[in-house]
Amino acid sequence: MSKPTSPAASDSPAFVIPPAPPGSARAQTVRDLNTARSLVSFPVDKLSNIIHGSPDVMKRKKELLALIESDPVFSKANRHHGSREDRMLRSMQMSKRLIEIRDAHKLSDADMWTLRALVDETIVITLHEGMFLPVLRSQCSPEQAKYWIPLAEQYKIIGSYAQTELAHGSNLSGLETTATYIQETDEFEIHSPDITAAKWWIGSLGVMSTHTLVQAKLIINNKDYGPHPFVVPIRDPETHVPFPGVRVGDIGPKMGFNLIDNGWILFHKYRIPRTNLLMRFSQVTSKGQYVKPPHAKLAYSGMVFVRTNLVRMAANALAKAATISVRYAAMRRQFTVVNTAKQQIGMRSSDETPVIMYPMVQARMFPRVAEAYATLFTAQEIESMYHDMMHRLESFDVSTLPAVHANSSALKSYCTGLALDGIEELRRACGGHGFLMSSGLPYLMANYSPNVTYEGENQLLTQQTARYLLKQLHKHQTQSETLHPMVEYLELVSLGGIKAQCTGVSSPTDWFNPSVQRAAFAHRAARLVGELAHQISHEGIPFADLNVECARVSVAHSQFIMVSSFHNTLHKLLKQDASMAVYPALKLVADVFALSEMLKNVGDFTEDGYLSQAQVKCLRQAFKTALHDMMKDAVGLVEAWGYTDYELDSAIGRSDGKIYEALLQRALDDPINQKQGGKGVAKGYQEYIRPLLKGERAPVKLAKL
Amino acid sequence: MSKPTSPAASDSPAFVIPPAPPGSARAQTVRDLNTARSLVSFPVDKLSNIIHGSPDVMKRKKELLALIESDPVFSKANRHHGSREDRMLRSMQMSKRLIEIRDAHKLSDADMWTLRALVDETIVITLHEGMFLPVLRSQCSPEQAKYWIPLAEQYKIIGSYAQTELAHGSNLSGLETTATYIQETDEFEIHSPDITAAKWWIGSLGVMSTHTLVQAKLIINNKDYGPHPFVVPIRDPETHVPFPGVRVGDIGPKMGFNLIDNGWILFHKYRIPRTNLLMRFSQVTSKGQYVKPPHAKLAYSGMVFVRTNLVRMAANALAKAATISVRYAAMRRQFTVVNTAKQQIGMRSSDETPVIMYPMVQARMFPRVAEAYATLFTAQEIESMYHDMMHRLESFDVSTLPAVHANSSALKSYCTGLALDGIEELRRACGGHGFLMSSGLPYLMANYSPNVTYEGENQLLTQQTARYLLKQLHKHQTQSETLHPMVEYLELVSLGGIKAQCTGVSSPTDWFNPSVQRAAFAHRAARLVGELAHQISHEGIPFADLNVECARVSVAHSQFIMVSSFHNTLHKLLKQDASMAVYPALKLVADVFALSEMLKNVGDFTEDGYLSQAQVKCLRQAFKTALHDMMKDAVGLVEAWGYTDYELDSAIGRSDGKIYEALLQRALDDPINQKQGGKGVAKGYQEYIRPLLKGERAPVKLAKL
Repeated sequence: MSKPTSPAASDSPAFVIPPAPPGSARAQTVRDLNTARSLVSFPVDKLSNIIHGSPDVMKRKKELLALIESDPVFSKANRHHGSREDRMLRSMQMSKRLIEIRDAHKLSDADMWTLRALVDETIVITLHEGMFLPVLRSQCSPEQAKYWIPLAEQYKIIGSYAQTELAHGSNLSGLETTATYIQETDEFEIHSPDITAAKWWIGSLGVMSTHTLVQAKLIINNKDYGPHPFVVPIRDPETHVPFPGVRVGDIGPKMGFNLIDNGWILFHKYRIPRTNLLMRFSQVTSKGQYVKPPHAKLAYSGMVFVRTNLVRMAANALAKAATISVRYAAMRRQFTVVNTAKQQIGMRSSDETPVIMYPMVQARMFPRVAEAYATLFTAQEIESMYHDMMHRLESFDVSTLPAVHANSSALKSYCTGLALDGIEELRRACGGHGFLMSSGLPYLMANYSPNVTYEGENQLLTQQTARYLLKQLHKHQTQSETLHPMVEYLELVSLGGIKAQCTGVSSPTDWFNPSVQRAAFAHRAARLVGELAHQISHEGIPFADLNVECARVSVAHSQFIMVSSFHNTLHKLLKQDASMAVYPALKLVADVFALSEMLKNVGDFTEDGYLSQAQVKCLRQAFKTALHDMMKDAVGLVEAWGYTDYELDSAIGRSDGKIYEALLQRALDDPINQKQGGKGVAKGYQEYIRPLLKGERAPVKLAKL
Repeated sequence: MSKPTSPAASDSPAFVIPPAPPGSARAQTVRDLNTARSLVSFPVDKLSNIIHGSPDVMKRKKELLALIESDPVFSKANRHHGSREDRMLRSMQMSKRLIEIRDAHKLSDADMWTLRALVDETIVITLHEGMFLPVLRSQCSPEQAKYWIPLAEQYKIIGSYAQTELAHGSNLSGLETTATYIQETDEFEIHSPDITAAKWWIGSLGVMSTHTLVQAKLIINNKDYGPHPFVVPIRDPETHVPFPGVRVGDIGPKMGFNLIDNGWILFHKYRIPRTNLLMRFSQVTSKGQYVKPPHAKLAYSGMVFVRTNLVRMAANALAKAATISVRYAAMRRQFTVVNTAKQQIGMRSSDETPVIMYPMVQARMFPRVAEAYATLFTAQEIESMYHDMMHRLESFDVSTLPAVHANSSALKSYCTGLALDGIEELRRACGGHGFLMSSGLPYLMANYSPNVTYEGENQLLTQQTARYLLKQLHKHQTQSETLHPMVEYLELVSLGGIKAQCTGVSSPTDWFNPSVQRAAFAHRAARLVGELAHQISHEGIPFADLNVECARVSVAHSQFIMVSSFHNTLHKLLKQDASMAVYPALKLVADVFALSEMLKNVGDFTEDGYLSQAQVKCLRQAFKTALHDMMKDAVGLVEAWGYTDYELDSAIGRSDGKIYEALLQRALDDPINQKQGGKGVAKGYQEYIRPLLKGERAPVKLAKL
């Protein structure tokens, strides 16, 4: 029964995928993607310019891509196979090569950011570039800058930024590492009192750094001045062996980011010169005198910059996942149901249905596309606030710092969460293939994942936002201070607006009115801030008992800002002739975003009677219509971001539509298959499989059972 | 400036972590875990018995654990380091060893399931055991069973179950592979018309299988009888080389599950004997006559079994993640805020706060603990329905099949989604350390992840549930058929209940009344089913346009069942003296579950005016109180599941509380650190790091820029 009789078949070791037969599912995917492109209602390049600011960005990206695309060092083939050691070696190799390319072509910092984004790996020099250098630039005194910065820029030293400790992440004031001033030798002694003081998570430290910037409690004459940054040489420049008094290593494999050497370090009474304290803001004199910074919050600007940047990166990451998923949904077909979308497009009822035509797929994917746009336009607003703030700081005007700090924190928290949840939802919406590394989605998700934790844990950040909002409300109510546009809804709290009902909606189309949308988010944010203030001032609940309420307020505030930012952007576009062709499509995206955000938390809008049952019904109907209408533009909306196939590294999101060939080709090229085109015998057969099949059981020590 | 002066330090290559100094953060974690245990209000072993049914389960698990715990083949050290090839070899090695242990100790199937759960890897024999054998057992004719099953049980053949194709997952009727009957030779010819017909995702096929069960369209005399299962020998039993006409391989790396050989296979006019069609339900005679199965749905029972099983596995996976996270939250301290929980426990305000005392951490973690219990009790109910159904099927009574099928589908969809989202939320709630593989959480998440896709994609399954509910409603309304207890709320639709208002709540404590909870979920489910029915019958919307509405209905139905199942379980416990001691704690867990589920979708309960603003305020207050009260029991509630340290494989969830030592020890043992205790030089230094530091740039071909 088990022996087959079989006619001869083509059994050459190399299996070449034959061309797609006409009428096959393979021919269909290519055709479907082109059809989807032909339906797009706007010029994609115009939208691309709005996203990137100018056509030069895309042009430059392509030039830079040409530098690495065919370099085997940067090949993405089999990037998911190697051991952690293999990955670290690749990471070093890529790092070295990038610097060589930089020097040979005299590339700018901006070019290097673009190149690293193309490579799409967080590598062993990423934190040297991303933290070590920026902190040196912002916290060195002029003489220090002259010494350290050229060394770092030329990679004569490699550095990292060591703040977090094994037992203390978010709580900076709980750090245990000390830097004690020793006047006799004019040195600081860096010391880790226990292993819980080990610096931990420090990128570029595990194997690469020659130096690290240590945040340690500054102690002078037994007095603790709190955490300060010190440049600490840790490895011998000639041998790379850690110096006596230093123990340093990698913290081990992670969910993602396995090409970077997140490291740990312990110090044992380790001495550095006094002048290694970064002295732009605070100083210690050789007499052991501490000189305070002119403004306690000046050092915050770096943090604000990073958080602002993370908002834009959230938009990029989400758009990347959306590009893969939406293309796949336009190509993948499943089942022969008949629904309205299929009928409208004139398909036969017997044709299998492109999954993008299912309302459920639209509801899973299109709001994510809209979120990417909303996040981008919000990033653009917060970036210009940041630049204005930096300009003011030059003349020590710190007046806008609290607003920029609070809003960048709220948005870092909300937008990175939105992006991670969105990427994962897009991945799941691709079904089984979304679980394959060759889809590109799991790697994107895993590597994006730490964004919700680093640079301020997302839930923790919401406490700061809430504090800021409470303060603004208090100031407004007691000092009639003019409200910043981003919090102008707080006016409603005092005007009795928190008892309002929505008046602008009596049909679904009313929900497409921007003022109706904005009023709803304003009302809801105002009501929640008002309730929080009431709980503290009238009910006497301690602030620390109100974590969940603070988070709710921060979400409401962030959503208000994002909906407003989108509206502001549309308003600006309306004034530009060149943008008129994309306006209707983007207006629809704005509607999908606003309505989706409202439906996610619809209870917030109904529980106080702001919306009636009929209005919620209209809301759901409007949302459904908007999703349905967005279908024709979906592929154009993702392709406007301009992600190349090299960046996407996705078999199912390919721009040529040949998804099934690509999936199989990746499998054929897999080392496990030993490149024998599906005719080979597995490594391990002799040791493990054959003995099993032949009943050759090894003796097992019979433990007591 | 860069050369340090440093006193001598202990620089021996081996770094031994010193004992925890008294008063240190390390001493505190151990103490905090013990304090948390001492607060638990119930006997943990009693609850453990309720979870596992009897103390024997835990006892047997420990006996089986002893068989593998100290066997290097099953060591979990460095399991996250190897290349994909290394992992596959380990997988084969573990597979062989498990069979040797099985045979030596004559272990039962149940024991083997327990062993594999302990090993906690989906390995190359998992699908042989989990799909190949069960399908043979349920679909072979008696003669076929006698031939094939002993071969498979003794591993003389290794098999897999090949249904999904590259271009067709969910849509079984779209499968392209054909099995054409050739009367002249009394054979079937298995053929893949194009690469899109490649069987894809098939576990145990990529490198292991000698045979695979192929679902192929049965063709006799050009007539298509739809998909049927065939046993197909694919690799030579002597050499393991694929037979002519077969191409087979691994599909490549995945987000998780990298120790299993999910495979692909293509057939070229490949012949097998007629008798290799599994003939329990349908037959083909040597004359080419097709014999229909006695009941078209009989083959469904296997699918129902798998889905039912996935509900219980969802509970287990979630409880495992919760064990790690809740223990960690009880040990991790951060910030010195003063909140009510801290005051009640008599801590000094200057003490750092165990993060479990933050309302936000409670809100992130405790509902997940409650979801694990709710899922378990629901699984127990659906399992007994399944067993009753199987009993009936023996006498061809298929009357309960639709209910069990629909409910197991709804619950598979809802509970696996709940578990995956819960695991990820618990992972994120552990902050940075939750991103480390040594926390155990990322691996658990990645490996659990496919549960939301396989055995019925979760969103797709909701369409079936909705269809079933609509049918039940229709039957009830037109034929006054008695409603199954799981859908008895449908009665409300006809009784005008969908316009009701909640009458039982005027204070927060009213929300702890089970009938109030149940009535709310019943009302909401009834309203949504009623609205869906109305949209179809009165508004004429095609069913295929209502995906999103169907999913909403399925969630509402699942939540109703889960809340009811929890109440039913509590009701049973009340009748058992032995359970009285755990009743109050479990009642609180039930409350946390019901209120959490309600708040997740609170708009569903407010938008039609069922709940008033005051009642929602009470709901939030009641939820907050319940979470706060659950804190004392939290560690007991997770430890009752009885997960061993070997199973958890987590540095931060250790039962001895030594989390910081464990994190550092894992890092020290990491191959990247070359076991030199933080004194070594990285592999790759000479090739990549030194040239970079010394400015030895390799020449770069200057492409046009």
